[in-house]
This record gives sequence, C-alpha cells and structure tokens, in this order.
Amino acid sequence: MTRFRASAGFTESWRHFDFDVSDGVATVTLSRPDKLNALTFDAYADLRDLLAELPHRGDARVLVITGRGRGFCSGGDVEEIIGALQRMETADLLRFTRMTGAVVRALRECPLPVIAAVNGIAAGAGSVIALASDFRLLARSAAFAFLFTRVGLAGADMGSAYLLPRIVGLGRATELLMLGDKLGADRAHAIGLATDVVDDEMLAEHAAALARRLADGPAMAYSATKVLLTRELDLDLAGAIELEAMTQALLMTSADHAEFYAAWTAGREPHWRGR
Amino acid sequence: MTRFRASAGFTESWRHFDFDVSDGVATVTLSRPDKLNALTFDAYADLRDLLAELPHRGDARVLVITGRGRGFCSGGDVEEIIGALQRMETADLLRFTRMTGAVVRALRECPLPVIAAVNGIAAGAGSVIALASDFRLLARSAAFAFLFTRVGLAGADMGSAYLLPRIVGLGRATELLMLGDKLGADRAHAIGLATDVVDDEMLAEHAAALARRLADGPAMAYSATKVLLTRELDLDLAGAIELEAMTQALLMTSADHAEFYAAWTAGREPHWRGR
Amino acid sequence: MTRFRASAGFTESWRHFDFDVSDGVATVTLSRPDKLNALTFDAYADLRDLLAELPHRGDARVLVITGRGRGFCSGGDVEEIIGALQRMETADLLRFTRMTGAVVRALRECPLPVIAAVNGIAAGAGSVIALASDFRLLARSAAFAFLFTRVGLAGADMGSAYLLPRIVGLGRATELLMLGDKLGADRAHAIGLATDVVDDEMLAEHAAALARRLADGPAMAYSATKVLLTRELDLDLAGAIELEAMTQALLMTSADHAEFYAAWTAGREPHWRGR
Repeated sequence: MTRFRASAGFTESWRHFDFDVSDGVATVTLSRPDKLNALTFDAYADLRDLLAELPHRGDARVLVITGRGRGFCSGGDVEEIIGALQRMETADLLRFTRMTGAVVRALRECPLPVIAAVNGIAAGAGSVIALASDFRLLARSAAFAFLFTRVGLAGADMGSAYLLPRIVGLGRATELLMLGDKLGADRAHAIGLATDVVDDEMLAEHAAALARRLADGPAMAYSATKVLLTRELDLDLAGAIELEAMTQALLMTSADHAEFYAAWTAGREPHWRGR
Repeated sequence: MTRFRASAGFTESWRHFDFDVSDGVATVTLSRPDKLNALTFDAYADLRDLLAELPHRGDARVLVITGRGRGFCSGGDVEEIIGALQRMETADLLRFTRMTGAVVRALRECPLPVIAAVNGIAAGAGSVIALASDFRLLARSAAFAFLFTRVGLAGADMGSAYLLPRIVGLGRATELLMLGDKLGADRAHAIGLATDVVDDEMLAEHAAALARRLADGPAMAYSATKVLLTRELDLDLAGAIELEAMTQALLMTSADHAEFYAAWTAGREPHWRGR
Repeated sequence: MTRFRASAGFTESWRHFDFDVSDGVATVTLSRPDKLNALTFDAYADLRDLLAELPHRGDARVLVITGRGRGFCSGGDVEEIIGALQRMETADLLRFTRMTGAVVRALRECPLPVIAAVNGIAAGAGSVIALASDFRLLARSAAFAFLFTRVGLAGADMGSAYLLPRIVGLGRATELLMLGDKLGADRAHAIGLATDVVDDEMLAEHAAALARRLADGPAMAYSATKVLLTRELDLDLAGAIELEAMTQALLMTSADHAEFYAAWTAGREPHWRGR
C-alpha cells in the first residue's frame, strides 16, 4: 500500500471481472465469454473503482486488460443496459453516461501504463476502453467497431471523439465514428490504432512480455511519460515545455537515474527499482 | 423548415453554383468548368450564406459538394480575385479573408455531415473546402494543391494550418502547406487525407451511396457525432468527456435509440427517423 | 541586421558547433564526431542563444541543422552532462531542463523554416531537436531513438510529449517515448516523422536543394506559414481562422504577392524578394 491512504480500505473482491496482481503486473480479464464480455452496469462501476484504487495498492506497476474467450469486449450489453436505459429517468441516464466516461478518464489519468490485449472484437464501449489504453496489442483476428451510431447514439461516447482523432487523425476518426464500420487488426495497425498485431495464439505471451518489461523497468519514468502524454494533449507549447522541465528535474533526483549512471560507469546493466 | 426560424426568408436562387436538394441530400455543384470552378467573391459569399441557411431548411440531412467538369475547385480566380485584391484597401482585404474563413468555419460548425466528392484538382481555397468537409471521396485522377505560397501568400489560409495538422500530423502538414506541391489521390489516401479513392467514373455513384446512407440513417446521431468531433478538437479531456456524457444521455431519449431497441427485440432492421 | 535591434550585439563566434551563413542559408553543424555529436551544457546554451539572434541578423532565411561524421546528435553527453547532473542542486537541475526546453521552444517559435538534415543517429535530445524542426530529411542509415526512459528519465523531455503525438498520433508516440526503442528511417517516413529519406551520400545535396528553394522563395510567406502552424496547434477553430484572416490580409499587401500577380499577368516567373 502507498503511504497516502487513510480510512478507505481496498476492495477485497472484484465480482464483475477477474482480477489478479502478480509480480507487479495487474490483470483485468473480462469474463462473460458467452456474451463476448459485454459490460453490465456493475462491470463499468467496478472498472471505475478499480482504477481509482490501483495506484494506491503499491503492488502493481502496469495494468493489462484482456477478455476471456473469442471476444475482447462487445460493449454495453443490449439486454441488460440498452433495455434498462429505455425505462430510465433523465438523471439516471446522465449518471450512467458519466460513469462510463469516468472509466475512460480514469484510464487516461491512471499513473500506470495500461496494455489492452485485444483478443477479439472490441466493440462500442469495448473499443473505447482499448482506445484509452496506452498500448493496444491486437490478435490478428481482432477488430474494432465504434458502432454507436448503429444503435442510434452519437459516435462520440466515453471520450471517443476526443481520443480517436488524436490517435489516427480527424479524417479517419470521422469515418470510423460516424459510420461505425468494423476495422480489422491489420488496418488498425496501418493507421496507428494498434501498437502491434500478432498471431492469435501469441497474444497472451506478447502482452505478458510487454507487461514484464514495463514492470521490471524504471516504473517512475514510465509513469511520468504516460501522465505527461495525457496532460500535454491539453497544454500549449510553453506550458508543456515547462511541465517537462519540472518533471525531468524531479526525475534527475530519482534513484533510477542515479542507478543508470552508476551502471553505465561500471559497465553493467542498470537494476531498476522504479523509484 | 425547422421550428426556430423567424423573419429571415430562405434564398430562392443560388446564382453562383448549382444547388439541389433531393430526398434529404443537398448538393452544391461548383459550375465554372472552363475555369476549373475557380471561386469568385460571390461564390464565397453564397457558400457562407448557404451553410447558414441549410440547417434551418429541414429538408437536408447531408451536404455533398462537388465540381462540374475536369476540376473540383481551383481556388480563388486569379483575374477576378487576386487582381481585384491588388487594388483593395486594408479594410476590404480583411473583409475578404474573414469571409473565406467564415466558409470554413460554417463547414465545420454545420450540424450536417458534409461529403466532398473531389472529381479533379482541389487547389488553394478548393483544397481547404475539401479539408473542412467530413468525408473526402477522391476520383483517382484528383489531386490536392495547397498552393498558397506559390502566389506569395501564407500556406495558412481559411484555417488550413489548423485543420491539416489535425488530419495528417504536423510534419506532413508543414511540408504540404509550406511548399504547396501537388498531392495525388493515392498518396492523399495513404496519409489519411482522402477517405477513399475510386475510379473517376465511379465517383458520383460512390458519393451518392454514402450520402444516401447518411440521409437514411440515424441523422441526429450522425449530426451529434460531427458536432462533437468539431468541438472536442478544442476541449480538454475532462471537458470532452462531460460533453459526451451530456450528449449521449440526451440521445438515449431519442426516437431512433428507442427504435434500435424495439427493432433488435423484434429481430428486424431499425427504421430510422433522424429524431 | 534587421531594423529592430538596439544595444545587444551579435555573437562573433559560436564555439560549440560550426556555424555558417551563405546566400540566405544558415547552417549549424554539430561537430564532435568522435562522440556522435553529443551535446554539452555549452552546446545547448549556444543553440538557445543562436536561435534568439538568428531572426535579427537579416542575412538568413532558412536554418539547416546537421551533424558531422556518422551521427546527427546522440543527445546529452553521458559523462559531461549526466555525470554532472548527479552532483547538482535542485535549482541547477531546473535551470538545465529549462535551458534544454528553451532550445525547442526557440526552434518552434523561430520565424524561419528549420531543416534537420539527419545524417545518422538522432538520440535523446538529438531526436527532439529534429522533432522541433520543420523538415526532417533523413539519410537512409539514420534512426531516431527517444531513449530517455533508458536512462531512467521521463520520455517527455524538451517538449517531446507535446510534439510527437501531434506528428505521429498518440498511440505511436506513446510506444516510442515510453519504450525508447530505435526507429529506422524508412519506418520514420512511413509514419510521417521523416519528411523524406534519401541515400546517405545524397543527403547534403538534398538538404541544400530544399534550403535553396526556401531561401529563394517568398520567405515572408514561408515564415508566416511556419509561425501559424506553430501557434494554431494551441488555438481553437475560431481563433485560428481569425489569425489566418488577419495574416493573409497582411500578406496581400506584400511585395511578393503583388509580384506574383505581375508575373502571372506578364506570363513570366515571379522574382521573389521575401517581403
């Protein structure tokens, strides 16, 4: 546990997905394989709450999100969510859309790198969860589908109209969000939406290797990189440069930076402590 | 006509391009084929005014802009515009540049999706009109030329230095705007500037099919997607997510979203009304 | 010298790189070939100060930055900089990171186009200097390495986390800055990070030709294009369009724009004066 935690306890059991922390790597596995891991109201809430707790636990340096079975995440469940929304009052509709947005905001503001290991279809909310991750490793058979307009809703959902243009450019984002057509893994890689594409059976191994690398590396440096990438999308040039100057001066006092220099001087590999 | 229109009438006749509305699809056809559809002062003014009126007419759900003959639009007419500018006072120069900028702002703020069916060269102001559209379908023989510096002016014209970096990235935008070299259709597609490239004789059909799809679909959802894409370029992460939460909660009360659920439950295709 | 210079003199001799101005083209050649042109504290300071003076000299219309020998610039020297940082107080660490940031800010705010002729490895600070240039011409054997996390520091350095996502998109920028892996010239070109890639022995000629073109062309138009590209990354749509309207109205009164029209009317090539 980190030092700055007072009364609130940690959640003992996450009931709406599988959760595991092992040797610095936290893993969320969406686990409704018969529904392509469609989200329920409770699954959104659990994601939101886990992302708030995770940086305080002190045992995780990277988060992997993946899905069990054929799909990554098919988005909000049509029966359990869309059906229920039809009967909901305005105030609850807004509570719901704010909750889903809060998941994305938490993913972007989480000081840990997040890897989406996209093992199959990432549709609707599932595509935005991948979008808000830092790395998107795709199985070759995986695909994105920003299918919001297909259900009569805005293609702008959970921050998709903020994130996607900043990843693939405004033109391609407009096409993808407006039309909601499926986008295969290779095309996603070609336009910079997928970090990498690997054969289906290699995905878990590939994601584990990247997670291992991030967990064993200079975690404070990775964390600062992610946090500044998030913030500098919203800063102007001078503000961004000042933020980087302050951050880098801070990191120059870190144990890991000193370790790099000691290792370099001694001609050995650095032993990162993440501090 | 929409409900919120008071004294101002609609323009009966657009004299500086061809204009048609048919079954939800508005079409502007630039029609000075002997000049590659070069713009005149009046053509700019008509574009600005049409874009202000169009959302109020109530009979159009999508706008297509295309050109007659070999060109899409070769930009401001050298004789009729550049010649006249040479003899103009400061105040009128600024009135002119603000008018051209107002066309682009109106294209981006127009709550209807806009398709540029680029049938030939899109140069100068013509290239920026395409840039400010939501979809850019290019004939294989079409090309872009941001040729402003070639006439001694800034490559930043009508918002091009705002839009192009957000579509193709700062590096490519710098090259294109600074040098003003011609960019062919296939290369435009490769860098995300063209939505699609089709054989010349297929362009009209392709544009009509996309317009049909947008006009027959959930128009309010498409409209919200476009408006939010425009706005979120200028919002920070938290503001964008809040805007999407409000918008989506609103659209959850729409007839089209209810229709999706009813259709899905009944196992039939939804019948979109655009409301 | 430009008109608006008062007491401060120009620096007679730049001691920490080679500097030359010839026929409108200024060239900085980083010249510690045995160290792959690693930067020292003084080299950073000289770059910062040169960029402040350069626009006032009046004899340069374009700046070329290149390296002598096998490398372009391998970043901050491990012995002379990282070693020294280990023994530095907080206030000096911040002075240093602000100085390096000031180099990048000066590159982006410099009203002259800047060409990075990347002849070999551009690593760490070297990669960010290339990133802050307007054109990146790469030798085929050149490579980028944003290797900050490899030394235990944030991948966000000197504005890299502001610039890179705006050039190659957030997804690719995250991968490059977080992991610090090497990126070859062809891949850099494919993702829009390199303006062009040429055979190693052709790089100098290629860079000279582009510099010649920029120096002989409508320099005020080029300058305005660069300045607005820089500023409009930080403006919203309406502000950007207003800035372009003001700028273009100003340039319509320029000698070069009048010369274009005179040349066009006379059927001859324009003779640009850069005014």
